[in-house]
Amino acid sequence: MNRDHLARMTKIEVVVTGSDAAAVRDLCASAGATGFTSLSGVSGLGHHGYHQGRLLFNQQATLELIITVVPDDLAETLLAGLRPLLDSSSGVLFVTDTWVSRPEYFT
Amino acid sequence: MNRDHLARMTKIEVVVTGSDAAAVRDLCASAGATGFTSLSGVSGLGHHGYHQGRLLFNQQATLELIITVVPDDLAETLLAGLRPLLDSSSGVLFVTDTWVSRPEYFT
Amino acid sequence: MNRDHLARMTKIEVVVTGSDAAAVRDLCASAGATGFTSLSGVSGLGHHGYHQGRLLFNQQATLELIITVVPDDLAETLLAGLRPLLDSSSGVLFVTDTWVSRPEYFT
Repeated sequence: MNRDHLARMTKIEVVVTGSDAAAVRDLCASAGATGFTSLSGVSGLGHHGYHQGRLLFNQQATLELIITVVPDDLAETLLAGLRPLLDSSSGVLFVTDTWVSRPEYFT
Repeated sequence: MNRDHLARMTKIEVVVTGSDAAAVRDLCASAGATGFTSLSGVSGLGHHGYHQGRLLFNQQATLELIITVVPDDLAETLLAGLRPLLDSSSGVLFVTDTWVSRPEYFT
Repeated sequence: MNRDHLARMTKIEVVVTGSDAAAVRDLCASAGATGFTSLSGVSGLGHHGYHQGRLLFNQQATLELIITVVPDDLAETLLAGLRPLLDSSSGVLFVTDTWVSRPEYFT
């Protein structure tokens, strides 16, 4: 499709336990993200937890999915901040290309 | 991966306040989308609202995330319809390439 | 952005009725996925159901959105397993490229 009216951004989705969610939102703010979307009613197992043996395959944790959309340069900063948090927790992170119609709202 | 069995489509995700959600769903239908997925339990702040000063950084609005997947030509129509709504509200919109296994269900 | 620290994976999102969700999670596990994220509070109409006449446009079903992230070879296996289930139900499936920071957690 014609993307002349759209600007490419980086969507970062983080799935963490409820207790780590506030830290993720704080990292979004301090990295310069202008907003986020947070979804409750999330459960899951694996990917990290499964390997750590923290969760058995029939156990599900109460989680939160936090979505933020940022320009590339902020994505680098945010990923650098998220890595230590995720390394010490059972969270996972997905990075996806996305396009937005009003890039000025994200910078 | 081998995508011979998959067809490329455009995924449009819209985050709006609950009061604007019905209008977004109506726009999906009138643009010719054959369906949508709607997620409640969504909160957020920014991106638009933050810039407008409507939301302070520690305030979160009750939002809805509406996902629809359409062929490219319908995506153009839908985006054109969504723009005025989002311009007058605090909604955001993300456009992502996605692939589906049964394109006939989306046209 | 610099993706040296990220590995490409395939994100598979499945929207199914609550009664089919367990079967989808079982298929994820048997295909070798190391985890999944499951979202409740999901409603929707179409894409498949609309065409089947099962759902009228103002009827919404209670659905579940299941997200799993796998390497490409597992994605093929998982899609092959999901197809018969989705063909006999009103589910839909979206396949998207995504990047993760710790690929070892997904294999």
